[in-house]
Amino acid sequence: MEFHCEKTPENLNRPDYRSALSARVTPKQSSGPMTLENDVFLRALLRQSVPYTPVWLMRQAGRYLPEYRATRASAGSFLALAKSPGFATEVTLQPLDRFPLDAAILFSDILTIPDAMGLGLYFADGEGPRFERPLRDRASIARLAAPDPDGELRYVLDAVREIHKALKGRVPLIGFSGSPFTLACYMVEGGGSDDFRHIKSLLYQDPESAHRLLEVNAEAVTRYLNAQIEAGAQAVMIFDTWGGTLSDAAFREFSLAYLKRVISGLLKEADGRRVPSVVFVKGGGLWLESIADCGCDAVGVDWTIELGEARRRIGGRVALQGNLDPAILFSTPEIVRSETSRVLASYGQGTGHVFNLGHGISQHTPPENVAALVAAVHELSPGYHQNPLPR
Amino acid sequence: MEFHCEKTPENLNRPDYRSALSARVTPKQSSGPMTLENDVFLRALLRQSVPYTPVWLMRQAGRYLPEYRATRASAGSFLALAKSPGFATEVTLQPLDRFPLDAAILFSDILTIPDAMGLGLYFADGEGPRFERPLRDRASIARLAAPDPDGELRYVLDAVREIHKALKGRVPLIGFSGSPFTLACYMVEGGGSDDFRHIKSLLYQDPESAHRLLEVNAEAVTRYLNAQIEAGAQAVMIFDTWGGTLSDAAFREFSLAYLKRVISGLLKEADGRRVPSVVFVKGGGLWLESIADCGCDAVGVDWTIELGEARRRIGGRVALQGNLDPAILFSTPEIVRSETSRVLASYGQGTGHVFNLGHGISQHTPPENVAALVAAVHELSPGYHQNPLPR
Repeated sequence: MEFHCEKTPENLNRPDYRSALSARVTPKQSSGPMTLENDVFLRALLRQSVPYTPVWLMRQAGRYLPEYRATRASAGSFLALAKSPGFATEVTLQPLDRFPLDAAILFSDILTIPDAMGLGLYFADGEGPRFERPLRDRASIARLAAPDPDGELRYVLDAVREIHKALKGRVPLIGFSGSPFTLACYMVEGGGSDDFRHIKSLLYQDPESAHRLLEVNAEAVTRYLNAQIEAGAQAVMIFDTWGGTLSDAAFREFSLAYLKRVISGLLKEADGRRVPSVVFVKGGGLWLESIADCGCDAVGVDWTIELGEARRRIGGRVALQGNLDPAILFSTPEIVRSETSRVLASYGQGTGHVFNLGHGISQHTPPENVAALVAAVHELSPGYHQNPLPR
Repeated sequence: MEFHCEKTPENLNRPDYRSALSARVTPKQSSGPMTLENDVFLRALLRQSVPYTPVWLMRQAGRYLPEYRATRASAGSFLALAKSPGFATEVTLQPLDRFPLDAAILFSDILTIPDAMGLGLYFADGEGPRFERPLRDRASIARLAAPDPDGELRYVLDAVREIHKALKGRVPLIGFSGSPFTLACYMVEGGGSDDFRHIKSLLYQDPESAHRLLEVNAEAVTRYLNAQIEAGAQAVMIFDTWGGTLSDAAFREFSLAYLKRVISGLLKEADGRRVPSVVFVKGGGLWLESIADCGCDAVGVDWTIELGEARRRIGGRVALQGNLDPAILFSTPEIVRSETSRVLASYGQGTGHVFNLGHGISQHTPPENVAALVAAVHELSPGYHQNPLPR
């Protein structure tokens, strides 16, 4: 059995780390065909007892890793990388081979769905994603249809299957999608935006078309995530990157309502195991109660809220995922360790916490600081779990 | 006496608008030498009774106005415009000549202080502000000193004096500054930023230098705002544009503590009149209670929080300024009116509300939508004020 904790002499001499290690490597029996060596991530999402706090990082397969940059160079472009199941599998596994992370996340782009709808995704040099044919009139919205996941999106499902196989049950695989609203932002703006002028004009001037667009997106996201689950994803996450740019009322009408619709349509079980769902709304700290009520198992939170406060507000209903400021990873291993310790202490005793950043990891992050983060979570968290051995 | 409400026949036929108008033009006696024709803005900030809800707009003098673009073209560049008291006066008054706004705000740049410290402010074509000499080492931070407002910043004070004179007491003049932390962001990053990598590295890796920088900035901001008050500003506003990018703990340590320091050093009275202070932290909705406790008279809020909720949380202690999403101004006069009505209703009955956007007005805003906004506030708000005539 392969095991990927950093077995440095220093780590192995820590009694708390050794006990966590031995708990991690205990093989689990599951009712489904695929045995998971490490299901701590799934258990924490379902608020079941765990021996330590699991950790993974948003965008953990990415440009901060030299091996990722090498694969990307072989692939020729980001899109070629993202659209090849073989390359996607390779980069998905890279961070797991370096750090003892407790989950893998499908390597893919957030804009696969609108690309499959025919909007023409491309990446301009040194810029973010763009669409050749953004939606700027009622007619193009009226024509829109949710893509069949087994059609234009088949390369994503092939990647899920290949990654699932390559993982050999080491850790769970997370599938993901952008939220209906976040996809709509890109589809209408044609790319990133500072002021979300076009999408907000649509919401306020033609709410009927906006709702039509969001309905199609919600159907597309639901089918896409369910297809990922059937292909082997053991948890799913929905990223509402731009929901936090809306007013309170607009968030409820144009984003939250469609998050609810997606969640209610998701497969709840696969392979004999519950498939937990995580919803992350960047800048959604004011709306935590409503987000927690959308039917998800866990809520991702950014770093602007004290994690303990988020737990007091919604921790009785859902698990929490977060929330270190990714900018802390620009500092030193010692600072990373002390700030990680603050986040763990803020959440406090007991299960229901998946350690993560409050947003995707930056390309400027030194990998040694990621090693320090993962080690700190595994070394410092067992003390917060009163029942160190899961049943 | 000049009066700048849009006296369209339609407006003048509305009984609520006429009664608000007659209340507005009642001359007030003040104990100081300058009589204000319209002090509704100052009274609302101090939570004194008002006949209607006052309104002004962040960045109300700006590129969305053709007359502003014409003046800027004459000036040659944005900096030439901002550094000339004559041009600054001209553009400060432009929106007041078009719309019956209840306050004027000094036209100036947010980065005058670091420019006066020698960092070399410039504007690259089509980009935001940049500094020629950003702070990237301890030594340059150690050398930093708060500028004498009567030295390098004299052009700003000259502008305040000239605007104050040109206003002839029509409405109060607001002075402003960036917050110590927001100035530090620009000074260390050298311009705008997506990830605030350099400033956050400084905060976490060298907190001593960060605190030194923030202390100098706090002293500079305090002296600068007091000099503006002495030159004729009748209220002051501090913009913490980037405080909302910090974690809860970092916001308290690196931004809020210095906002408190500035507020405690401000002149509280000038010209025989209280000088109210407003603090605006973009993205600060989670921290409203702490911001309200910093000693300010009013808290500016962005559109992500329901105004009524903000009032329930802190309306017993401070006035509130906000909070229409500026993107609503991309729509139509009818939609602007109905969304304005929602914001007024959300605040509800009584004084303590200054209507504003939740952030600066966009250059893409049609001026007719601003007219609709100001008219809607003046027409719809008298019903929310039980005592329509101020004493």
